[in-house]
Amino acid sequence: MGTEQSLQRFREFRERLNERILQEGDRTTKRFFSLDSFAYQEGALTVREKELLGLTASAVLRCNDCIAYHLIRCAEEGVEDDAIKEALSVSLIVGGSIVIPHLRYAYDLLDQIHQENSPP
Amino acid sequence: MGTEQSLQRFREFRERLNERILQEGDRTTKRFFSLDSFAYQEGALTVREKELLGLTASAVLRCNDCIAYHLIRCAEEGVEDDAIKEALSVSLIVGGSIVIPHLRYAYDLLDQIHQENSPP
Amino acid sequence: MGTEQSLQRFREFRERLNERILQEGDRTTKRFFSLDSFAYQEGALTVREKELLGLTASAVLRCNDCIAYHLIRCAEEGVEDDAIKEALSVSLIVGGSIVIPHLRYAYDLLDQIHQENSPP
Amino acid sequence: MGTEQSLQRFREFRERLNERILQEGDRTTKRFFSLDSFAYQEGALTVREKELLGLTASAVLRCNDCIAYHLIRCAEEGVEDDAIKEALSVSLIVGGSIVIPHLRYAYDLLDQIHQENSPP
Amino acid sequence: MGTEQSLQRFREFRERLNERILQEGDRTTKRFFSLDSFAYQEGALTVREKELLGLTASAVLRCNDCIAYHLIRCAEEGVEDDAIKEALSVSLIVGGSIVIPHLRYAYDLLDQIHQENSPP
Amino acid sequence: MGTEQSLQRFREFRERLNERILQEGDRTTKRFFSLDSFAYQEGALTVREKELLGLTASAVLRCNDCIAYHLIRCAEEGVEDDAIKEALSVSLIVGGSIVIPHLRYAYDLLDQIHQENSPP
Repeated sequence: MGTEQSLQRFREFRERLNERILQEGDRTTKRFFSLDSFAYQEGALTVREKELLGLTASAVLRCNDCIAYHLIRCAEEGVEDDAIKEALSVSLIVGGSIVIPHLRYAYDLLDQIHQENSPP
Repeated sequence: MGTEQSLQRFREFRERLNERILQEGDRTTKRFFSLDSFAYQEGALTVREKELLGLTASAVLRCNDCIAYHLIRCAEEGVEDDAIKEALSVSLIVGGSIVIPHLRYAYDLLDQIHQENSPP
Repeated sequence: MGTEQSLQRFREFRERLNERILQEGDRTTKRFFSLDSFAYQEGALTVREKELLGLTASAVLRCNDCIAYHLIRCAEEGVEDDAIKEALSVSLIVGGSIVIPHLRYAYDLLDQIHQENSPP
Repeated sequence: MGTEQSLQRFREFRERLNERILQEGDRTTKRFFSLDSFAYQEGALTVREKELLGLTASAVLRCNDCIAYHLIRCAEEGVEDDAIKEALSVSLIVGGSIVIPHLRYAYDLLDQIHQENSPP
Repeated sequence: MGTEQSLQRFREFRERLNERILQEGDRTTKRFFSLDSFAYQEGALTVREKELLGLTASAVLRCNDCIAYHLIRCAEEGVEDDAIKEALSVSLIVGGSIVIPHLRYAYDLLDQIHQENSPP
Repeated sequence: MGTEQSLQRFREFRERLNERILQEGDRTTKRFFSLDSFAYQEGALTVREKELLGLTASAVLRCNDCIAYHLIRCAEEGVEDDAIKEALSVSLIVGGSIVIPHLRYAYDLLDQIHQENSPP
């Protein structure tokens, strides 16, 4: 909500709780988690294209954690910053100014991702 | 936003601000707050059933504070964890992966609620 | 959109298109359809309770087709009108006046469902 | 959904079903309907100002029936077309291109309202 | 709303009302319409990629008219059905079962688009 | 998220990131930012009226950062607290109890704004 969020903290919380959900969740939840991974595998669309779709969907639905996840995945897939920014601008046009706080969040997180990946 | 939130802090802020709204809010707001309490009283549905409906509605609408409130109320009404987790899994199926960050939040909060209630 | 919709037409279109999606859809879509059915099976919650959760989720997310589906399922499970109306009123309180058009739709559909089930 | 809707049909269905809901609905629903009317009465804001707020809220939440209702009320309160169009343009900027189909609906309905009110 | 909608009727209404909005709308609205076209032009992402993003955004935000528009554009850009269906399945996973009625709508419309384009 | 947020931190983050987006964003994003400012200029509606529309739209769409921005702008335009509270109560009625956490946020922020503006 208008303040920076540590990339590290997001990942730690996400991994710890996902693990717990996979242990203690009901069967529907576990099957959904499995299907969620399956959905982004290469098919008629490449993984890169699907991650950009996931990022756009997350941005128009205005979910910072989902934006964080797909930004990390886009970086892992080698999607260039210009492509990410255009996906975010399509999200901005479709979703309107209510998306702007999430654009700020995404640009800030993109910096954090690059800093992690740059040699000291 | 991918990080833990203290149950205690949520309650303190909620109570302090609700009190202020009831003092300084306009009449529409005050009447809505009163109706909001009324809606969850026993009728054709039990309080337990209504709180599970409130939890599901909060989860698909992706509001962490509303999830926290209805989780606390469910615990007070003695709803078992398995029932809560199934209500959350229906929310996940209806609302999709965008609900997952709120599932993580709910599972983490459920732990905090149990820790408060367990004897030292 | 403020006008009646034939229960019959909804069912015919839904069944015809669902069949096509199950034939021509990709594997993710097919697995999701299967999981969607699985999620409403009896567990810690009864089928009746889960259908009321599905109805509430559909109402606050304001999807008439989903409301129609869960109303039909509630009727099949023998959920009484009073219980349905209270689930809709929780949806109204959580989701606000923007839910009202869907309340009108649901009350109208409930009539059509009863007319179908009543002997001539 | 991209096609004209008769102003007359909207009104007829709305009035008939609202009446039924007020007869057969549970107490929460009836109290909400009463509060919903109360909220738009003159206070620190004029009725005109509140109807423009209602129209904007309806447009960004993308509910055609709610847009129809507030357009009719705006016309009754004598709000000029230019003011209505600017309220809709704020909605468009906040809510993005996903609001455009509802803008088309609103402009079309505004015509129907004027035709009703113009002498033959 | 669970029933077919003529592709032809959508297009006719869309074009007629867009024209009126561009004539009678305020300046903010006109500038937004221009920017909306600009956003889908080729840049770091191709037009094809941007249209798939627009389709996904429309599906998770559950707007049939926006789905119709981007399906038509995808077909014009030569996007294959398999790619379209995978974009819709990512939308389904992100947005959940509430997206299913819009999946039915999209599959039905895709047929209508192919029928128009096939020689008699 | 149920906890106070410093007005100062919101402003600092917002300004720093907006500046970066205006430097590094693609052309669509820059044009949207410019149009977003343009939309709130005086026309058939006053700036005060448009800011109240922006506040209401932000509240029903449940975006704390957008609420913060429009509350600050309302205060700058001299909108009285009573008018702001009525705009929020219309938002509450339209959007339902899911808006309540954002009402708490708004009331708390309004205090912070007044404290900044009051002489020591």
